[in-house]
Amino acid sequence: MSKQKNLSHLDETGSATMVDVTKKHATSRRAEASCTILLNATSYDIVQNNKAKKGNVLEVARIAGIMAAKKTAELIPLCHQINLSNVAIDFKLSKSDQSIVVSASTATTDKTGVEMESLVATSIASLTVYDMLKAVDKNIRITDIVLNFKDGGRSGTFIREKSSSHKL
Amino acid sequence: MSKQKNLSHLDETGSATMVDVTKKHATSRRAEASCTILLNATSYDIVQNNKAKKGNVLEVARIAGIMAAKKTAELIPLCHQINLSNVAIDFKLSKSDQSIVVSASTATTDKTGVEMESLVATSIASLTVYDMLKAVDKNIRITDIVLNFKDGGRSGTFIREKSSSHKL
Amino acid sequence: MSKQKNLSHLDETGSATMVDVTKKHATSRRAEASCTILLNATSYDIVQNNKAKKGNVLEVARIAGIMAAKKTAELIPLCHQINLSNVAIDFKLSKSDQSIVVSASTATTDKTGVEMESLVATSIASLTVYDMLKAVDKNIRITDIVLNFKDGGRSGTFIREKSSSHKL
Amino acid sequence: MSKQKNLSHLDETGSATMVDVTKKHATSRRAEASCTILLNATSYDIVQNNKAKKGNVLEVARIAGIMAAKKTAELIPLCHQINLSNVAIDFKLSKSDQSIVVSASTATTDKTGVEMESLVATSIASLTVYDMLKAVDKNIRITDIVLNFKDGGRSGTFIREKSSSHKL
Amino acid sequence: MSKQKNLSHLDETGSATMVDVTKKHATSRRAEASCTILLNATSYDIVQNNKAKKGNVLEVARIAGIMAAKKTAELIPLCHQINLSNVAIDFKLSKSDQSIVVSASTATTDKTGVEMESLVATSIASLTVYDMLKAVDKNIRITDIVLNFKDGGRSGTFIREKSSSHKL
Amino acid sequence: MSKQKNLSHLDETGSATMVDVTKKHATSRRAEASCTILLNATSYDIVQNNKAKKGNVLEVARIAGIMAAKKTAELIPLCHQINLSNVAIDFKLSKSDQSIVVSASTATTDKTGVEMESLVATSIASLTVYDMLKAVDKNIRITDIVLNFKDGGRSGTFIREKSSSHKL
Repeated sequence: MSKQKNLSHLDETGSATMVDVTKKHATSRRAEASCTILLNATSYDIVQNNKAKKGNVLEVARIAGIMAAKKTAELIPLCHQINLSNVAIDFKLSKSDQSIVVSASTATTDKTGVEMESLVATSIASLTVYDMLKAVDKNIRITDIVLNFKDGGRSGTFIREKSSSHKL
Repeated sequence: MSKQKNLSHLDETGSATMVDVTKKHATSRRAEASCTILLNATSYDIVQNNKAKKGNVLEVARIAGIMAAKKTAELIPLCHQINLSNVAIDFKLSKSDQSIVVSASTATTDKTGVEMESLVATSIASLTVYDMLKAVDKNIRITDIVLNFKDGGRSGTFIREKSSSHKL
Repeated sequence: MSKQKNLSHLDETGSATMVDVTKKHATSRRAEASCTILLNATSYDIVQNNKAKKGNVLEVARIAGIMAAKKTAELIPLCHQINLSNVAIDFKLSKSDQSIVVSASTATTDKTGVEMESLVATSIASLTVYDMLKAVDKNIRITDIVLNFKDGGRSGTFIREKSSSHKL
Repeated sequence: MSKQKNLSHLDETGSATMVDVTKKHATSRRAEASCTILLNATSYDIVQNNKAKKGNVLEVARIAGIMAAKKTAELIPLCHQINLSNVAIDFKLSKSDQSIVVSASTATTDKTGVEMESLVATSIASLTVYDMLKAVDKNIRITDIVLNFKDGGRSGTFIREKSSSHKL
Repeated sequence: MSKQKNLSHLDETGSATMVDVTKKHATSRRAEASCTILLNATSYDIVQNNKAKKGNVLEVARIAGIMAAKKTAELIPLCHQINLSNVAIDFKLSKSDQSIVVSASTATTDKTGVEMESLVATSIASLTVYDMLKAVDKNIRITDIVLNFKDGGRSGTFIREKSSSHKL
Repeated sequence: MSKQKNLSHLDETGSATMVDVTKKHATSRRAEASCTILLNATSYDIVQNNKAKKGNVLEVARIAGIMAAKKTAELIPLCHQINLSNVAIDFKLSKSDQSIVVSASTATTDKTGVEMESLVATSIASLTVYDMLKAVDKNIRITDIVLNFKDGGRSGTFIREKSSSHKL
């Protein structure tokens, strides 16, 4: 019962509901999420060469991530509509791991936070990389979608724990 | 150069382009994707109890995944518009791992495949679980978003390799 | 239990699911829905005079209904995406009742029917009338949203019963 | 002529226009709308049993209504874009009437009201119930879509008149 | 290099990015854009006669322009989401030129300007005219899409130069 | 009166309506549209240098155009929903004119043509170029949006007349 009360998206009878933020204050809020894309040698080479020349795989993914962040409230049923003041997507390539780390930062001045906007941007940017490379590597794996950071609002600053209580 | 030719979403000058499927045949096509959500003890209990009683966290996530599958061509820039004949989302809870495996199957009769539709459904369903539980567990991690299976079309059947050439 | 099986949008465990239409045939399908808008003397006069001169209230409503029909699969979670071959909206004014009957006909050649498309078109056209008149009449009432007719597909032709088993 | 001036969505030449709210103040605004769904014995039983067990018909409808409220400005041509601070959907079953009363409350802090958001939420939630039950009852009737209440803004509080001047 | 810095939508490495407006102030902002549609004698007559009677070609275009303005952030990848306080579309017919000048004014109180909203409204209203007349005149030409005016924000007022430095 | 009959988007009473394509056959259809963007020396140099290095202005515009083509039926009120089998956007820079010619080709196999899809792609790609360069050149002008070519369907092939009957 007390746990149920903690779960702000379900009302006391267990039905889905938006959190009522009517009385909350609009404050500056930011969030950063990331994930990792694991590639094989062929698909990694294409991204890296491509990047050296034209950068198109990652540029298309970047645009997709930015546009998806703006669609978050259409995708996540109980999210509030938030007008973002910033979305930035960053890619870090690691040749030794054949991996790309995708990060998304979002910001707003509003009554509720932008965690979901960063997570959606990260996920859709990564799936766009998958889409553009699936002709050569259908085994691409997207992993470790996590929220790294948020600040602003009543619940304050969150920084991801490195050794969390999650079992896997 | 030969690799570049393999990458069907980039034309010979490296610019982004949709794959021209005008001359391909409409055939029956299916795809299945999955991912794993890793929870802490508190958030896992909420989902499991909730499931026993009302199932709302997973039911909201299921609806979100189905609706997102239908939006794939709006989210992934170079995806074709496909009218899906089926979307099904499945959840498997594991108490020992405090995890939920989310699977999405999609189907169509069209000129191109539905891999991205399954992957988008899986991702958005999982992010909806995150959204509904983030008040109690911001460290939730979504991992191993992969395509398990596709069939139909000229490239035939794909079944995910268990021991792939991906390093991590 | 047998009733549950009849309810095609819920699977055997009671979870929401799209109906799998993969093996159904694309055939010509039509549907017609209607509803009634009840106005006061002032708002009715505006629509009628307006109609004589410029017709704008009803013309905006007509466009809204047509555009909404095309969005049905985005609005109704378990609806299939259907490309409509026709949408037509019709208005009948009755001075004695101070009412407008709104009808919407839709058509497609696809694997599943267009009942929801007609119902959505009718509803959104009517709500647009409300929106344009609410400055002078907030008591407008929209009533009797019903499906009058459908044909095509395995379940064949449906024509609404005038004296149905509904109590009110 | 004076009536025409009252109709804020048409300019003086009768063309459609958005109301210019540039100089209005952002204030707290709420609205509540409702409608009634009339079922036959079979469809009513499914909803009621379903509710006792899993609640899925109404839960899918609830999600649909919340998501539709967020899409109001895309559906109603002359509506302003409003970021909602709350959407809540409520269902009341009446066994004697074989009916469901659907209510939707919405809130914002903005320059214009949320009447249409509540009405859209109510309508789409009800149409989703229709969609999920149409396999067993195509004669379902949605009736009495009305605005019950609004407050906030220059025009102040509105409470629906029980015996209105509408003829039917 | 200094030019690159001026181009606010590309970061220093040349990748696409939204402009971060987090620290800007919400102020009243307006913009006006226009374009010209060039018709042949037949299509011009239809619009003009139509206008005298029902005005439907231009009324459908007007609605399309208003609705498109509200979708700007979905269409232009790096645009911020802005809730408009006004959109107004105006048409001026010139019989001697067989032309229609389409103007769109938009307004908001927000952290960034509405130039793109006016330009999108103008363009989509014009394309809607094309769509409604293409059965009789596929040679219709839309020309001179320009921003005429903006005010508000740090960069202040812009009024289009009549003799610009553009070569054609 | 006979002209009115030619205008397929208005019914005999002058109200807006979709063209009923229910009985038309699905055939292969293509269309190509183009327009010209006129820049000043500074903005032209940025695009050209950018193109040599990273190509981002045009790559973002290309993605915007492809995604907008897929949204045509949401933007143009009376357009049918069409699933495109191809969208390709091409840019030709002319240093002497300080201009960019934007072309968009689209294709489908469906019951109606894709003229509007090509025109929408061209327009939104061009407006995206405007958006990315407006910080350095607000006087950019987009001109000569035209349909160059279509084939497929009952009305057959259209090729734009160079010396049309349009006065300007």
